[in-house]
Amino acid sequence: MAEKPSIPKGTRDFTPVETARRNYIFDTIRKRFQLYGYQPIETPAMENLSTLLGKYGEEGDKLLFRILNSGDFLSKVPGDLLQAQDSAKAAGMLAEKGLRYDLTVPFARFVVQHRNELAFPFKRYQIQPVWRADRPQKGRYREFYQCDADVVGSDSLINECELLELIDAVFTDLKLKVVIKINNRKILAALAEYIGHPDKVTDITVAIDKLDKIGREAVNKELLSKGISNEGIEKLQPVLMLQGDNASKLQSLREVLASSDTGLNGIAEIEKVLGYLSESTLQSEVELDLTLARGLNYYTGAIIEVKALEVTIGSICGGGRYDDLTGIFGMKDVSGVGISFGADRIYDVLEQLNRFPEEAARSTQVLFVNFGEKEEQHCLSLVRKLRAEGIAAEVYPDQAKLKKQFSYANTRNIPFVATIGEDEIANNRITLKTMTSGTQESVSFLELMSAIQKNG
Amino acid sequence: MAEKPSIPKGTRDFTPVETARRNYIFDTIRKRFQLYGYQPIETPAMENLSTLLGKYGEEGDKLLFRILNSGDFLSKVPGDLLQAQDSAKAAGMLAEKGLRYDLTVPFARFVVQHRNELAFPFKRYQIQPVWRADRPQKGRYREFYQCDADVVGSDSLINECELLELIDAVFTDLKLKVVIKINNRKILAALAEYIGHPDKVTDITVAIDKLDKIGREAVNKELLSKGISNEGIEKLQPVLMLQGDNASKLQSLREVLASSDTGLNGIAEIEKVLGYLSESTLQSEVELDLTLARGLNYYTGAIIEVKALEVTIGSICGGGRYDDLTGIFGMKDVSGVGISFGADRIYDVLEQLNRFPEEAARSTQVLFVNFGEKEEQHCLSLVRKLRAEGIAAEVYPDQAKLKKQFSYANTRNIPFVATIGEDEIANNRITLKTMTSGTQESVSFLELMSAIQKNG
Repeated sequence: MAEKPSIPKGTRDFTPVETARRNYIFDTIRKRFQLYGYQPIETPAMENLSTLLGKYGEEGDKLLFRILNSGDFLSKVPGDLLQAQDSAKAAGMLAEKGLRYDLTVPFARFVVQHRNELAFPFKRYQIQPVWRADRPQKGRYREFYQCDADVVGSDSLINECELLELIDAVFTDLKLKVVIKINNRKILAALAEYIGHPDKVTDITVAIDKLDKIGREAVNKELLSKGISNEGIEKLQPVLMLQGDNASKLQSLREVLASSDTGLNGIAEIEKVLGYLSESTLQSEVELDLTLARGLNYYTGAIIEVKALEVTIGSICGGGRYDDLTGIFGMKDVSGVGISFGADRIYDVLEQLNRFPEEAARSTQVLFVNFGEKEEQHCLSLVRKLRAEGIAAEVYPDQAKLKKQFSYANTRNIPFVATIGEDEIANNRITLKTMTSGTQESVSFLELMSAIQKNG
Repeated sequence: MAEKPSIPKGTRDFTPVETARRNYIFDTIRKRFQLYGYQPIETPAMENLSTLLGKYGEEGDKLLFRILNSGDFLSKVPGDLLQAQDSAKAAGMLAEKGLRYDLTVPFARFVVQHRNELAFPFKRYQIQPVWRADRPQKGRYREFYQCDADVVGSDSLINECELLELIDAVFTDLKLKVVIKINNRKILAALAEYIGHPDKVTDITVAIDKLDKIGREAVNKELLSKGISNEGIEKLQPVLMLQGDNASKLQSLREVLASSDTGLNGIAEIEKVLGYLSESTLQSEVELDLTLARGLNYYTGAIIEVKALEVTIGSICGGGRYDDLTGIFGMKDVSGVGISFGADRIYDVLEQLNRFPEEAARSTQVLFVNFGEKEEQHCLSLVRKLRAEGIAAEVYPDQAKLKKQFSYANTRNIPFVATIGEDEIANNRITLKTMTSGTQESVSFLELMSAIQKNG
């Protein structure tokens, strides 16, 4: 009868401390999203497969979780397919719905479907889980949260500026040191042209995107394998090795790409964004990085990526501009730009650095020991008063041994324990133990309140 | 190419206003959960089907959404099953995971799986969506949120008292008038014994649970059809028609059930809970309702249900005590009690009564009109200052026509629009329009701030 309970691989339970810490991250990001004028939306976990399929490449299609149709689903599959046990073909007939793979495609679908109810430019944020049938491994899960902010319906570079400021504000709030890397897809396109392979922008960007991970030699090897000429690869090297501050990088680049309108356009866009930022006081460095490509070929302008400076981990936030995201659903010429925070990686970074604020995992401020019926009633009324003041408080519900009650307070990380026996009731006093120091003193109700407020 | 986008039936998109209003409900409930010492947990959307199957009855099993196995899933199904197109049997082989159907079973699974990491009594709350392949209809969705709070590992009736106070506090916060109905499964069991059918507690409670909906005559008919004797049904009538306040109902009941230990026990439990509550100042009436059964046969003690008083709708919150929820996963004798808020119904009630606070749907406080490059920069720096003060503000990103920019502010429900041209920059002033009144005046930055704060 009794089963040994477990959960599907690649998924996770979150204990109270973990959930509270995750909420600290979500709340920090959400607060900034709102302050910058982004509005929340939510979309269903399940989308029609017709919405999802073909949007993430062949590999992505395979990673979709599909929902088995209800009822007599096999009757809709031709017998010969079943007999041949052709899973790939049958899948399309057994399932019409799938779990969302990211928040971007559902967002595009949402914008098209609700276009008449929305104010454009539409600034939305969305914090929801996504699902991928990826092979689970350390730091990669089958269910994880994305925290996205996008503006669609505006091609102003003020949006890029604002998103960069927003990123800086979030990581400043989280007390994490980061570098914000930017690039522009137009520059990458111009470089492809410059080295004589204008048709290979994707191959080239995918390869140079790996520079950090695999090194220059391996990147060159990959470029060669993709059919880039030796001459082209050689022409690319100085660009990959550009040094100095943003201004000097842009200067060198302007020389290299002098004859490319697209290239100069990309350079001008970056300069304009940096100009908007010139009067803002960012905590993080914004660094032009020409090797930043983010492999996503729907980006058409700015490319953004954030790296933590204190630990080695992949990007913890990224984004960019896309000129035609809603086109796949029939709404053309709507430019957008957006970013996505990787909450799970941010969690890992904060944990490694031990940088979660203590309050993030604390709920109840004071536990009232339970001595018996008479004391219970007295404690209950004090707890009611505290709660009315917005202070989280509990009476231990059972008349258990003192040791057990104190151990409960300890495990729960409750900072104060109040003991009230007959004497205390008679004198209207509270014996208050501060759990961190172990000190104990007799206090009035008001003194209890102020001790808690001082500690908070 | 262009598909007409849609979402699966029974699911919903939430626009910014709807999401903000839903968050208002979730935040109100969450705040109270925390104040009362409940800690948050989260569990995965997908559970192993072995965890879910058999927990919700045969009907429930059919309503589970199953996730098609990845890879070559058909190869795991015997050919003859496929040939016979036996969907029911094949389902078990095509899918190993399902979407959670409620938060209670995942919670029981969580408690058993993490028993060594938790402090008992364990007070947890959980606010997450659940999925049911129900036939969609008005007010019934295939994806909806549950907001649950439970205590396990304590049989103290202080927990019942606290949950009732919590319910009252939440609905007071939401400015909704409700009645909180309570009953006790032990009384129902004793009544079944009293009318001569101790083995038919479930049939009896399911029938009398419908009293409100179908009336006494139909209930009696159902009781008869379930094999209850005419004599038994007759004995039950006075109990179903009990009138008066809680004390007089309990008094009558004590006479009827005088010879039943179980019955007297149930009565004593209710009296104890009402006793705990005697010093609390509830806004809502707590009413003993013997026809309250909630059809869930895992309840063993208290039964709780909340009805809105101002609109006709089903229950908007419910719960009760269960003595052996974790037993199905091999952890015996852990008593628990919990409640669940129906956020979707609460939303409908608040909407019908037009009782969402205006702030719930407001984000940005002031929009800065975009006149051109020079003005942009000036506005950007003012927006930065406002955000640093915690005030949500935006610059309209594009140099669009004034009419379009004002219309944006209108649609977004932004209360103030600031216009800054060359003159204003030169004089360090802001032309501020209050959107509700249409009045316009020249103000300083500090006056702008105080206008916004006054309005907030």
